[in-house]
Parts: sequence; structure tokens; C-alpha cells
Amino acid sequence: MVVDLPTPSVIVDGGVLDRNLRAMASSAAARGFALRPHAKTHKCVEIARRQVELGAAGLTVATVAEAEVFAAAGLDDLFIAYPVWPSPQRAARLRELASRVALRVGIDSAESAAALGAAVPGLEVLVEVDSGHHRSGVAPAAAGDLAAKAEKAGLRVRGVFTFPGHAYGPGRQRPVAGEEESALTEAAAAVTAAGLDAGVRSGGSTPTAALTGPGVVTEMRPGVYLFGDAQQVELGTCGWADVALTVTATVVSRSGNRIIVDAGSKVLGADQQAWATGFGRLIDQPEARIVALSEHHATVVVPEGAAVPGLGEVLRVVPNHVCTTVNLADELVVVSAGQEVDRWRVAARNANT
Amino acid sequence: MVVDLPTPSVIVDGGVLDRNLRAMASSAAARGFALRPHAKTHKCVEIARRQVELGAAGLTVATVAEAEVFAAAGLDDLFIAYPVWPSPQRAARLRELASRVALRVGIDSAESAAALGAAVPGLEVLVEVDSGHHRSGVAPAAAGDLAAKAEKAGLRVRGVFTFPGHAYGPGRQRPVAGEEESALTEAAAAVTAAGLDAGVRSGGSTPTAALTGPGVVTEMRPGVYLFGDAQQVELGTCGWADVALTVTATVVSRSGNRIIVDAGSKVLGADQQAWATGFGRLIDQPEARIVALSEHHATVVVPEGAAVPGLGEVLRVVPNHVCTTVNLADELVVVSAGQEVDRWRVAARNANT
Repeated sequence: MVVDLPTPSVIVDGGVLDRNLRAMASSAAARGFALRPHAKTHKCVEIARRQVELGAAGLTVATVAEAEVFAAAGLDDLFIAYPVWPSPQRAARLRELASRVALRVGIDSAESAAALGAAVPGLEVLVEVDSGHHRSGVAPAAAGDLAAKAEKAGLRVRGVFTFPGHAYGPGRQRPVAGEEESALTEAAAAVTAAGLDAGVRSGGSTPTAALTGPGVVTEMRPGVYLFGDAQQVELGTCGWADVALTVTATVVSRSGNRIIVDAGSKVLGADQQAWATGFGRLIDQPEARIVALSEHHATVVVPEGAAVPGLGEVLRVVPNHVCTTVNLADELVVVSAGQEVDRWRVAARNANT
Repeated sequence: MVVDLPTPSVIVDGGVLDRNLRAMASSAAARGFALRPHAKTHKCVEIARRQVELGAAGLTVATVAEAEVFAAAGLDDLFIAYPVWPSPQRAARLRELASRVALRVGIDSAESAAALGAAVPGLEVLVEVDSGHHRSGVAPAAAGDLAAKAEKAGLRVRGVFTFPGHAYGPGRQRPVAGEEESALTEAAAAVTAAGLDAGVRSGGSTPTAALTGPGVVTEMRPGVYLFGDAQQVELGTCGWADVALTVTATVVSRSGNRIIVDAGSKVLGADQQAWATGFGRLIDQPEARIVALSEHHATVVVPEGAAVPGLGEVLRVVPNHVCTTVNLADELVVVSAGQEVDRWRVAARNANT
């Protein structure tokens, strides 16, 4: 425990982080796909550089603003995995970015292809495909038609991508990894049949990355794997020992087997999937449950018979969804053996545009 | 619509805000309680000053860090409505604050009273009472005993407070306003019976503020009333015309009566009470529902037959819970008649310690 830090603080175990980064790099190499980690999870330049050092082909980002932050730091191969709409101010920023880094963006409609082609002629794009998550993306069979329209609009199609977000559910990883691969296979065939380039066949995600390839998928874009979080533990994607990021919290109130700690939704985030067992977990007492969360209070229930932490004790909370936790923090405190060794600025925090 | 802003941006209608500020100030005066608005909602110095200008007795904050931000800006009467635990670094900060502003903090245990008394002798405190929300706070009948222990520990008891968070549920406002008042009445009697000062009897909250007094309650601490949000509209506490804060969002994907806009949980927050009808609402199309939310995507379903916004259109989203939305933003863009007139820094953003 880093005793001198005020609570709540967001701390990262540098050793666990590095082990996670290496493990995914090795797994990607063994499974035959390129790794293009999603930087929306960490938003830190230091971590992005380390991912590239360990062999990442480039970075994935969610927004033009995130791309700008990482481009400014010298990361020069960026994919905006999003159906970017080029409103006038965004179009100018895309042109500027495309002039200095290798840039690709997502498209999922003829309208956005036409608008992007007019705004940034020659821009490289991937066609977004819906593999079952039903968020953005076209049906796999429609990818060839959209690719052809994009080329006509002056864009350069380089392949297809999907985000299998429906893998976030107990027991869903394996079937969804199959759907992800099928969707990319069908979409790539449609693009090839249209006479266009389907060289990039890009999938998500931390839950499916260990179940993918070798095969049609040429790159994967997992984000959360480097930190882990309570969702990933509850999905079985990682264990407690793999969780690198926690939030320190002081016990401020106590009644029977129920305690209140001072980490709430303004530091953890309020994400809670329907299948989650609470609003985060305690890494040193995983049998406890966070049964309620408000802005500065987490209500923790400790099972009958287990030790109830005392007032003033500092605990470590594993957030449900680490991406939103990081986006709330200004910096991550890097620790090793309980001692602070570094601080990393969350450079792309709030880079939503 | 403020067309030149990138989306998503957090915008505040200055006219609606001022009307809400004035209405609550008048209502408090008419109902016979002092107003000590909770600054955790807006976190902006400009708004805090305006609240005091309109007659607020002082500010409520949730953390020592928030108190530090507002004290530095000259707000000199602050109540930390939280059972503050004085860890060594926090104790030093409390001493510093108490030396330059009128400061009160909450206590809800003999242990925290003893620790605070040792750390900041003479500090003014209010005893926190549980009025039914079952988060922090002691039972009303126990307030006298705790007050006596606090005085013995060297603190100066000034009264009691409660937060009736269980008023956040359809049909709950009126019964919970009654519970809030009963709990404060009983707790104040217990403190008085112990021969101590129960002059301050402080309640929440935006849902109960219009149902309180005149009577035992001497001050109220509503936070959300100045902006409104989808929760308050769905509770019936305010109407759409009273919502002052919205998040702009561009339609980036469209399929039938389902659209995706580019405001997700990283700008709106992921708060969703069990009774909420979605993850926020569209202010100009309240019949639509946000059925899914991820970090940069809100999935909106428009009812059959209603107009479906087109790709590239800019909409305004009302977040479910405005406090977490503000805490994600670096600044609020103040608009009047669709034109930007000012920007306010979210000075206490991430002030969680």
C-alpha cells in the first residue's frame, strides 16, 4: 500500500502491467495476428510507446482527439476504429493528421464515405462490420458494396473491421470469437469480390483475443488486457493477480459487516453490466461486494465471519471497467512493491471529440 | 445549436441556469430555510459566486479537495457533508482550511470524532444521521451520544445533517421528505437532550427541497437543481424547459429508426438508476430512448413514425446524472440563443481527495 497518497488515488503496479503487455504481445505473435492495442484504455503516452516497443503494429484510438494526442507524441500509425463523421472542424483536423501520420478511419455508411472522400481525399479506410453487437457497422455481406462506394468517393479501402462487444457476457467469449471471425471472413470475401483490398481484417477485443487465429484475422485491437478490471475477472479473462490498476480508498464509515469507503463513481466510474456482481471489487478481499455506489461512497458488504476492515484502513478497489476509471484520472501513480516509482499523465483524458 | 463546437461538448444555457438559481433561492426563502447548495454538481467558481450573490449561506462540498478549490477562490463558508477520515495528510489540509475559512465537517462515528478532535482541535462538526438511505450516518436516536463524544474529543458540535438519497425513486419524494424531517427532528432533540447545540438541522436534496419546511429544517443542500438532468425530469422534479446543461452529439451511424451519436459514457457518465428509462434523453426528441451506451456511442431508438435524425445532424443529450457529467468535463461552454458567450473551467473536477 502506498501510504502517503491521498485517497482515492489511481495506482498501477508496473510489474503486473509489464507482464500483461508482454503476455499479449507473445500471444498475438503465437496466434498469427498483428497487435494494434486500443489506447482508449490507458490514454498514456508512456504505455503507448511501450506497446510499440513490444511489437505493436500501431495504435487503435476511438476519436480524432485521441489520435491528435498520440500523434503529437510521435506515435505515427493510428487507426480510428469509429465511424467518424467529418463535420467541418473535424475534417480539417483529419486532413492535418493524415498529412503527418499513417492514418486509417472506419466507415459504416455510403453517406459518411462520401463526406469523408470529399473532406480528405485519398484517406485510408476500413469498412466497419456488425458481427452481432448491433451497434455501428454494416452487415458482412454489405461490406463489398460499401467498399466500392468508398473507393468511388475517393477513399482507399484497406479492409474490414469489427468490434465484438457482445463478448462481454459470461460464457459469451467463445461463441462470439467465432461470430467475429465469421463476420470478418464474409466481409473480406465481399470486399475481394468487389475487386478491392481486404488485406486488413481487424477484430477486437480483450475477451476474444486469446480465442482468435490463426486464420482470417490479421490484427486484433484489445484494450483492457494491460490493466484488467473486475469485469474481466468476472468473465474469466484474467485473474486477480493480473489486475494492474486499482484505486486506493479509505474506510470512512462502518456498521456491522458493512463499510463505506471514499472511492465513488467520480473516481471508479459507474459502469455496471447486468451480470456484474457489484460496482467493483476489493482486490485483497474478493469475497466482499460493493453493493451501492454514489459519487464519493462505495458501500461494501463483507460476508458474515470475514474480517471487517477498520475505520481509517486503506483498501484497494478494482473498478468494474478500467477504461472509464482512467478517463476520470489526471494521472496514474506507478508503484512497485508498494512504493511510488513514477507518475504518468493521462494525456488523452477527455479527448472525446 | 452551437454549430462551431466539436461534438461532444458540454453546454450550459445561461438563461435557464440563472432562472433555476433564482427559483431555488426564492423557494428557500419562502420555505424558511437557508440554502447551502452542494457545489459537487457544478464544481465551477463562477456558479458558486452567483449562488452566494443570490443569498446562499455558504457552500456544501463533498471532499477536502473540493473545499480547497472553493476556499482558494474566496468562498469562505464551507461544509464538507461527508464523514471525513483525518488520515495524516488529510488532517494537515483540514487544519490549513480551518485556519482561513468557516469550516464544518460531518462525523458519523466515535472513532472519527476522536481522530478529528486530535487532528483539528476545535473543529466545528455536524452529526450525520441516517434518514433511511442507509449509506453513512448514525440512527437519529444515537445522535446525542455521538455529539457528546465529539465534544469530549475537542470538537464543537453545531447540529445534525442527513442526505435523503432514497428520495431518488418515482413517487419517493414526498414520503422521504417526511422521513428526512423526522430524522432531523429526532436527532436534534437527542443532541439538545445531551445539552449540546443542535442549531443547524441540515437536509438534502433536489428532490425534497420543494417539499420541506417551514419547520425543523434550518438549511438545505440541493445540488442538481441548477442544471436539472434526465433523472430529475423522470422523477418529476423539473421539466425539459428547466434543463440547463446538455451534451452536443453528432449522428454518426443510422439504421432504420436506430441511430448512433458520438456522446458516450466518457462524456455523459454511465449512471443509470434501476427506474431510469435509458442512459439519458434527447432534449428535442424526448420520446426517443438511449437504449445502450458505450464509451463513445449512444444508441438511440426513435419511435416508429417519428422523424429519424440524419447522419451529421447535431443533437443535444440530457445526461441521466449531471454531477458525473460535469466531473468528466474540463470546461462548460455557456451559451445564449445558440451562441457561445462564456466558458467556465470545471475547477473542482476530479477533486476527490
